[in-house]
Amino acid sequence: MTNRAFYENLDAIDPLSPLRSEFHLPPDTIYLDGNSLGIMPLAAPIRAKQVMLQEWGDDLIASWNKADWINLPMRLGNKIAPLIGAGQDETVVCDSTSLNLYKVLYSAIQIARKRHPARRKIVSEKTNFPTDLYIAQSLCAQFDMSLELVDGEAIDSIINDDLAVLLLTHVNYRSGAIYDMAQITSQAHAHNALVIWDLCHSAGSIPVDLCGCQADFAVGCTYKFLNGGPGSPAFVWVHPQHVDQITQPLTGWMGHATPFAFETDYQPAAGIRSYLCGTPSILAMSVLESSLDVFLKAQGYGGMPAIYKKAQTLTSLFIQLAEKECAGFGLSLVSPRDPEKRASQVSLSHPEGAYAIIQALIAQGVVGDYREPGVLRFGFTPLYLRYTDVWDAVMQLKSVLQGEAWRSDTFSAKQTVT
Amino acid sequence: MTNRAFYENLDAIDPLSPLRSEFHLPPDTIYLDGNSLGIMPLAAPIRAKQVMLQEWGDDLIASWNKADWINLPMRLGNKIAPLIGAGQDETVVCDSTSLNLYKVLYSAIQIARKRHPARRKIVSEKTNFPTDLYIAQSLCAQFDMSLELVDGEAIDSIINDDLAVLLLTHVNYRSGAIYDMAQITSQAHAHNALVIWDLCHSAGSIPVDLCGCQADFAVGCTYKFLNGGPGSPAFVWVHPQHVDQITQPLTGWMGHATPFAFETDYQPAAGIRSYLCGTPSILAMSVLESSLDVFLKAQGYGGMPAIYKKAQTLTSLFIQLAEKECAGFGLSLVSPRDPEKRASQVSLSHPEGAYAIIQALIAQGVVGDYREPGVLRFGFTPLYLRYTDVWDAVMQLKSVLQGEAWRSDTFSAKQTVT
Repeated sequence: MTNRAFYENLDAIDPLSPLRSEFHLPPDTIYLDGNSLGIMPLAAPIRAKQVMLQEWGDDLIASWNKADWINLPMRLGNKIAPLIGAGQDETVVCDSTSLNLYKVLYSAIQIARKRHPARRKIVSEKTNFPTDLYIAQSLCAQFDMSLELVDGEAIDSIINDDLAVLLLTHVNYRSGAIYDMAQITSQAHAHNALVIWDLCHSAGSIPVDLCGCQADFAVGCTYKFLNGGPGSPAFVWVHPQHVDQITQPLTGWMGHATPFAFETDYQPAAGIRSYLCGTPSILAMSVLESSLDVFLKAQGYGGMPAIYKKAQTLTSLFIQLAEKECAGFGLSLVSPRDPEKRASQVSLSHPEGAYAIIQALIAQGVVGDYREPGVLRFGFTPLYLRYTDVWDAVMQLKSVLQGEAWRSDTFSAKQTVT
Repeated sequence: MTNRAFYENLDAIDPLSPLRSEFHLPPDTIYLDGNSLGIMPLAAPIRAKQVMLQEWGDDLIASWNKADWINLPMRLGNKIAPLIGAGQDETVVCDSTSLNLYKVLYSAIQIARKRHPARRKIVSEKTNFPTDLYIAQSLCAQFDMSLELVDGEAIDSIINDDLAVLLLTHVNYRSGAIYDMAQITSQAHAHNALVIWDLCHSAGSIPVDLCGCQADFAVGCTYKFLNGGPGSPAFVWVHPQHVDQITQPLTGWMGHATPFAFETDYQPAAGIRSYLCGTPSILAMSVLESSLDVFLKAQGYGGMPAIYKKAQTLTSLFIQLAEKECAGFGLSLVSPRDPEKRASQVSLSHPEGAYAIIQALIAQGVVGDYREPGVLRFGFTPLYLRYTDVWDAVMQLKSVLQGEAWRSDTFSAKQTVT
């Protein structure tokens, strides 16, 4: 693995390599930020043009029926389902992860309080993605629940008969560490607690089996590994045993049983459709559909197991090569070393220069990103990355570290969005 | 007004006529449904292509800074502001009308309860758009408030010292009737009650002066008269005296004071930015911006006053001509006859055939729509409609009514979306 030919050979025998041609690859760039914003599928601008010119431009309002706009949220949900182990008509695409989390956590709290009125504890992890914590704080304040944040290693210890709801992100956004969904869900259920899984960094990245794990609720975004475009709509899944038990609170007309009856009283639709709220962006939904279709095509190449297997190899090679080539420059591994515990991401830390090193690396055409505090993140997306990208990226990282340019003001001045 | 030449002459002297060339006009169609889904501006697909190919495709994650994606919600809010009489940085574009209504009604309830803990009454109108009522029902259940629905004419009578929050849609979606925002707001304030205005059928249709009326809260959509595209994002406005008084409950990371500090605790941004929640669709936002820019251009042609003046003439002519040409066919006027009380819409009823008549009319190339119960709606959008469209539309309506085809099963079978 100490020469480029080794990586060229891996590319030559990579069964997923044909899928790279489905994407618009950014010029002169090794893009290791698909865990933040996925690359555009080539079908996406074609679909966008069709929606704009034909469906909106020519057909206008008739497209709600003619182009079946009205069923986009459910149709897309069913295209995400095989990626997350959901059954038919159990997933719907709408709104943002934050909003969908509000819906499911609200529902979970109501169910938990029916089961055990005295339980007040919602637990999450200290380094969970902040928006999850912010939404949980809002609902805890509303319902007199207490939010306890613990270290990731301490999750086991808080699963007991005090726990009402456990809210975890399946793959940590900073480290790429994976929680054991089956084990944690089972442990929580043994204490009759509910579990919500945020799949933002799992969906399209690693195999997920919501039904197999008997999870209670899940949400996730589509603009990272699912390549749906900047701010593309999110998804929500609710276990069939819960979905009709509680009316989620964001009761917009699209979640009504008969929206076009224009009834005065809210009557939720049966099933996951009741998690819809207002009128969704048809353009954003349609573009996302073209991205999800790439994953349907990927099923012919081994699907999520094959995708994750390649990601494990990519990340393992990156770690090994970076530790060898960049030894002595102060980098440390933040992600789990065990590939079974690591999703499609490698995070490194640097005691003084993480932000500036990333900026200098981006200037050399290798795009990773920075997360507070002091983390360099590199996402590995098997649909469009090559093994040679690992080699080339590490060589660029080494060249940045060997130089002094990253210490200049040019690279240390923080931008609005990091 | 009894011959086409009269309308041709009005078109010839119409000061707004140059703006028609800003739009992609659907082929062989007179489109009278801009109150449901506005026509596509020609700039919209060009902007969409730029976002897709350059900002997402080539520049990817860098576009959050480079293309200033991060400030789209506030920038677009400031482009809507002059259309609704809002001050600088008081409006933000995000989410859907339903979601924004949830935010502002939640805030209004908290403020009302601080002022008068005993007041429990939220009032709205029976024929308000259902999503507003559904959201109000959800929040009333959560906060032990009571929702009272009254006839539009009875609003005056319920404004008293029992009233906590009045929730009204400024222009009724079925009839096009306008409430007197200044008078009602002032009357409610005299009793120390709060007023929320839904501007879905006002924004881009009639002049609105939120600041002049000292309104408390407002929400609205952008896909009707603002032509933002199917399901384009909504807007929310909060009076500066209220905006920092309450934290709205949908506390996603985009509403945080410092989202990229990734702090554990939610700290709302100052001002209306705190009404943001999750990551918005950049594509949907960008396309909307190109639509709002047409309204900026329209300011050079007299702006909203000129637009509404033309709408009043269009709707008045339609009513007069339809009543003359289609007399004896059972149509009745649902909209107010007084043009000062009517927005850019004419609604008619028919005792037995409203739905089928609209379908038959659509088949002849005149697109209106149907709303329960028994209403034919016709929207008049001065930016792209001509006076001759009024003449031609009425002639087609007359031809449908004179025939028997509308009585066939072809036109009476209801579609999913009406």
